[in-house]
Amino acid sequence: MERYTLGILVNNNPGVLSRIVGLFSRRGYNIDSLSVGETENPKISRITIVVTGDRPIVTQIQKQVAKLIDVITVIELTMQASIQYELVLVKVNTDATNRAAVVELSEIFKAKIVDVSEKTLSMRITGNTDKITSFLHLLQPYGIAELSRTGTTAIERGSQAMINHKEE
Amino acid sequence: MERYTLGILVNNNPGVLSRIVGLFSRRGYNIDSLSVGETENPKISRITIVVTGDRPIVTQIQKQVAKLIDVITVIELTMQASIQYELVLVKVNTDATNRAAVVELSEIFKAKIVDVSEKTLSMRITGNTDKITSFLHLLQPYGIAELSRTGTTAIERGSQAMINHKEE
Repeated sequence: MERYTLGILVNNNPGVLSRIVGLFSRRGYNIDSLSVGETENPKISRITIVVTGDRPIVTQIQKQVAKLIDVITVIELTMQASIQYELVLVKVNTDATNRAAVVELSEIFKAKIVDVSEKTLSMRITGNTDKITSFLHLLQPYGIAELSRTGTTAIERGSQAMINHKEE
Repeated sequence: MERYTLGILVNNNPGVLSRIVGLFSRRGYNIDSLSVGETENPKISRITIVVTGDRPIVTQIQKQVAKLIDVITVIELTMQASIQYELVLVKVNTDATNRAAVVELSEIFKAKIVDVSEKTLSMRITGNTDKITSFLHLLQPYGIAELSRTGTTAIERGSQAMINHKEE
């Protein structure tokens, strides 16, 4: 079982996200993260889905998604051939005695402090999954009060754009 | 018509994302962005949805989502009371004659250059929607080859955590 990242371009019509998510749900495929946003073309949205599975299953998913109405193209974005990042907001329990230690960690990981209260410190961090996992692991002893992740977003390296991929 | 941000905590069971997205789709509500990721508790996922609509519609959506199976809590995250950010990857057409101008823009906006090819420059930027809109607007004349957005993610300001919100 490995993690795979799929990039999906869709026509921005109501129902397309529902069809894609429904396909995963009906087949019992597990979505680790999903993010969807507008693209340079307001009529097209871009969805990034991270799934855990075996290679044959992921290939099958890719083919099935490609057949859905309003799906323009689906590609797999490998770690080697793409740039992948995630944004995380994390609220950590801190007080006067341990705030400095958490601030130090934020500096090491280049996380940005975005809010402070008497009992908590909130930070924003951008990075790949490994970096974020390490950061969160080190924050755990203080107590993570809240965590909000965008899920991975990704684009291919080099000059190619997904919209120009031929359908397979 | 305004933009509203909803934070939703759900039990990490298959089908819950499908139910939520399906509700929006069936009622014809337009999702501007959606992001879903794991939380500090592996059994709970967190979804952030940005919708455009009128106040009564958004209140109605919030109530309907709250009733769905495996939805733990739904809150509205206002601009005043929450921290909201989005991560964007953008690939811009550049060549030797205009690369320096694009690099200068990236510095002004604190975007990070993550990939360069002969014909393109890829950047990563984190910010609120206004900042990102301005940045993309200034990049437009060069030609945006590709754009991948995570959608907004948000947490409340202060020490409160969503998991402790009472159901309304």
